[in-house]
Amino acid sequence: MEKKLSKWGFNNGDLKEKSLFSIRSVLKMLMENLKEDDDNRSKIHLGRGDPSAIPCFRTSSAAEDAIYSAVKSAKFNGYAPAVGLYSTRRSIAEYLSHDLPHQLSPDDIFLAPGANQAIEVVMSVLARPGANILLSRPGYPFYEARAACSNLEVCHFDLLPEKGWEVDLESVEALVDDNTIAIVIINPGNPCGNVFTSEHLQEIVETAKKLGILVIADEVYSHLCFGNNPFVSMGVYGSITPMLTLGSISKRWIVPGWRLGWIAMIDPSGVLKKSGIAECLQDYLEYSANPATIVQGAVPHLLEKTSKDFFSNINNILKEAVEAFYTKVQEIPCLTCPYKPEGAMCVMIKLNLSFLEGINDDMQFCTKLAHEESVIILPGMIVGLKNWLRVTFAMEPAILEEGLERIKAFCLRHTISS
Amino acid sequence: MEKKLSKWGFNNGDLKEKSLFSIRSVLKMLMENLKEDDDNRSKIHLGRGDPSAIPCFRTSSAAEDAIYSAVKSAKFNGYAPAVGLYSTRRSIAEYLSHDLPHQLSPDDIFLAPGANQAIEVVMSVLARPGANILLSRPGYPFYEARAACSNLEVCHFDLLPEKGWEVDLESVEALVDDNTIAIVIINPGNPCGNVFTSEHLQEIVETAKKLGILVIADEVYSHLCFGNNPFVSMGVYGSITPMLTLGSISKRWIVPGWRLGWIAMIDPSGVLKKSGIAECLQDYLEYSANPATIVQGAVPHLLEKTSKDFFSNINNILKEAVEAFYTKVQEIPCLTCPYKPEGAMCVMIKLNLSFLEGINDDMQFCTKLAHEESVIILPGMIVGLKNWLRVTFAMEPAILEEGLERIKAFCLRHTISS
Repeated sequence: MEKKLSKWGFNNGDLKEKSLFSIRSVLKMLMENLKEDDDNRSKIHLGRGDPSAIPCFRTSSAAEDAIYSAVKSAKFNGYAPAVGLYSTRRSIAEYLSHDLPHQLSPDDIFLAPGANQAIEVVMSVLARPGANILLSRPGYPFYEARAACSNLEVCHFDLLPEKGWEVDLESVEALVDDNTIAIVIINPGNPCGNVFTSEHLQEIVETAKKLGILVIADEVYSHLCFGNNPFVSMGVYGSITPMLTLGSISKRWIVPGWRLGWIAMIDPSGVLKKSGIAECLQDYLEYSANPATIVQGAVPHLLEKTSKDFFSNINNILKEAVEAFYTKVQEIPCLTCPYKPEGAMCVMIKLNLSFLEGINDDMQFCTKLAHEESVIILPGMIVGLKNWLRVTFAMEPAILEEGLERIKAFCLRHTISS
Repeated sequence: MEKKLSKWGFNNGDLKEKSLFSIRSVLKMLMENLKEDDDNRSKIHLGRGDPSAIPCFRTSSAAEDAIYSAVKSAKFNGYAPAVGLYSTRRSIAEYLSHDLPHQLSPDDIFLAPGANQAIEVVMSVLARPGANILLSRPGYPFYEARAACSNLEVCHFDLLPEKGWEVDLESVEALVDDNTIAIVIINPGNPCGNVFTSEHLQEIVETAKKLGILVIADEVYSHLCFGNNPFVSMGVYGSITPMLTLGSISKRWIVPGWRLGWIAMIDPSGVLKKSGIAECLQDYLEYSANPATIVQGAVPHLLEKTSKDFFSNINNILKEAVEAFYTKVQEIPCLTCPYKPEGAMCVMIKLNLSFLEGINDDMQFCTKLAHEESVIILPGMIVGLKNWLRVTFAMEPAILEEGLERIKAFCLRHTISS
C-alpha cells in the first residue's frame, strides 16, 4: 500500500506549477505570520471581502427571518432540482429584471452554491481544446484558477488606473484571436472598487459584439455603489450581444457563508438559447454542488422583504470608510492610491518600493506588516498586479483608520534614511 | 457571435457518450411521463432516497434548533476555511470516533457540500493518467459520473444477490491490476439495502491490503439499520489498511437538502498522511464548493442534541415499511426480491420480463408504470443492473403498500395471457 501510494504521488501539481494561489490560502499564510505575543493590540483584517463578523455589517433581519421560516416550514429539507428551485429562480429573475429593459424568466436563472461556483460552472462549460478567455489585470484570481482546472487558456487585458480602472479596449482588440471565447468584466470592480459608467459598459459590449465573443459580467457587488456612478447592469445592453451575468446574495446581504449565487442568461434575442449553452449549464449542475435548499427557500423572502434602509445603511458605512481611508492613505509617502473607490469593498494601492529599505516586494511587505503590526492586507501579485496592495475597506471606519495608522508607522519605520 | 457559438458547439458530450445519466435526470424524465389528468390518484414517488417531505420523516427538532441558533448567533454568515470550520470538524471527529477503536482528530475530517461532493473530491484527487477504480454493480451512479469527469477508468465487481449482496471478492482479485488505485464499498448498501457483517468487512479490508489498493467506504446510510446486522464502520479495520470514509447528515437526519457531508481519513498508522493525500484534499477544496457556513455552524448542536428516540423512530418506520414491502412484493408474479433489506432506504427487485407483454426492458417498465399508475420507481440500468428495479421504501408504510398494489395491478394487466 505504502509503495503504491508513493508511486501515485498525490500532489495536485497543476495549480502549484502555474503559481496560482487562492486568496484564502495567502491570507491563511499571513495570519500564521501574526505576532504571537501581541496581546495589547488586536489584529486588523483588511484582507478579505467578508465583513460579516463586524456588528455594523450584520445581515438584515429579513434575511435571518427568511431562514427561520424556510426551516420552520420543513419544505426545504430535501434535494432541489440541479438548476435550483423554481420559486427561487423566479424571485431572482424578478429581482434582476428591475435593472433591465426586458423581463427575465426563471429558466434564464441557474443557481450555484456561491458566485465562485458560478465561475466554476461557466469556466467548465466554456472550456474546449485550444480555447482562450480574456480576464482583467488586476482581477479576481478564482477565474484564473478555474480556467486552469478546465485547461482554458487565459489572456490578460489591462484595467487603466489613470482612467478610473476602465478597460483598455485597445488591448482587448489586440488580444482576441479565433479561439477567444469570452471576456470577463467585473463591475462594480473587484479588486479596484471602481464603478463603470453606462457609456463604458456600452463600449465594452459593442467591442465584444464586434469581436464575436461572449460577455461574462460579474456583478457580485451589484448595488454596493456609493460614489458618482450608479450601478448599471451590463444586461441593459443585452440586446446588443447576449451575455451571462453572475451574481450572489453574498455581498449585498453580507452573507458570503450562505453560499448562494447564480448565473443569469441575458439573451433577449434567443441566440444563446439556440447555442445549447443552457442545456450545458444544466448538465454541469447535475453533477456538481448545489446550494443548500434551506438557503434557496429563504431567497424569495430575503429579496422581497429586505428594507431599503438596510442597503442604504451599508452603503453609507462603506462611503464613510472610503473617505477615512482615502484621506489617511495620502499621508503615507510610499503608497499611492490612484482612484477613490465608488463601489464594492476593496481598493488597489501602489507600493513605491524605492522609498523602502529591506522590503523587496508586495508579498514581503504584507508578511512583515502582519508580523510587526498585526495588520493583514493582500499582496497585489495575487490579483495580478505585483507591487500593489489590495486593501478591504469594508470595516468599521475607526478600525480602518487605526489599521492605516499602523501601516503608516510601518512604512515610516522602513523608509530609507536619506 | 452566432457563427462563433455554433462553431464552439455546446454539448457536454462526454457524459452523454458514456450513457451516464443522473438519478435526478431519469426521475425528472419519468415525472414528465405521469398521467396529466389523473386527478383522482396522487402520484407515489418511490424513486429517490429523500423522504424529507413526508411528515413522519421530518428532521429532528434538535436539527432545526441548531440552524436557528447558528443564524441567531450571526457567527456563521462568513466564509469558512476550505476544509470546514474547526469546531464542526471536531464534532464530526468526535461523532465518528464512537464507532471506532481509535480517536479521530479534527484534521482527519474534510467537509464537502454533501456526500456527492465528497465523491467528487475523492474521485478528482485519486485520478491520474491510466488509473482505474473498482466500483460495485449495482452501485451508486454518481461514482461513475464523477470518475468519467476525472478521466478515471472504472472496473466493476459484482455484488451477489444470493449472498445478501456481499462483495464477490474473487471478481475483485481478478480485476485488480497495477493501475488500480482504490475500491469503493457502500455500506449500508445503496441500492440494495444490505448491511455487511463485520466479518465480511474485515475480508474486504484484508483483500484491499493484499492488493495494495485504497478503500473508500461510503457510509452515507450509517446507522440506518433495522435488521439482524448492526452497522459496523469499515474504519474499525483501519489498522489493517488505511481508508477514507464518506458520510453525511443527509440520510440519518433526513436533511439531504442541507448539503453537508464529509471525508474522514482513517489512518491510525499514518500511511495516508505521508502520501500527501490530505494536502491534495485541502487544495481541491480550496477551489471547489464548500458547505453553507450556517449549516456547518449547526452541526455540533445537531450531532450532540438529537435524541435517541428520533433515530429509533426513523428506523422503526423503515423496518415497518420493509415488512409491508416484502410481504406485498411476493404477491407480484413478475417481480422477485432476493433479499429483504436490513438498512438504508432502497431495495433491488428483479424483473422477469418473460411474464410480461409489450414491455421490453426496465426503462420501459418504469415509463409505462409512471404513465399508467402514477408510481415512480427507478430502472435498474441506472444503478448498473439492467432489468432490475430500484425501489425506495422510505415512505409511509400505507402509501408504500398502495404503491405496490398499483405495481401489482400494472403487472397483472401486462401479464402474457396463457
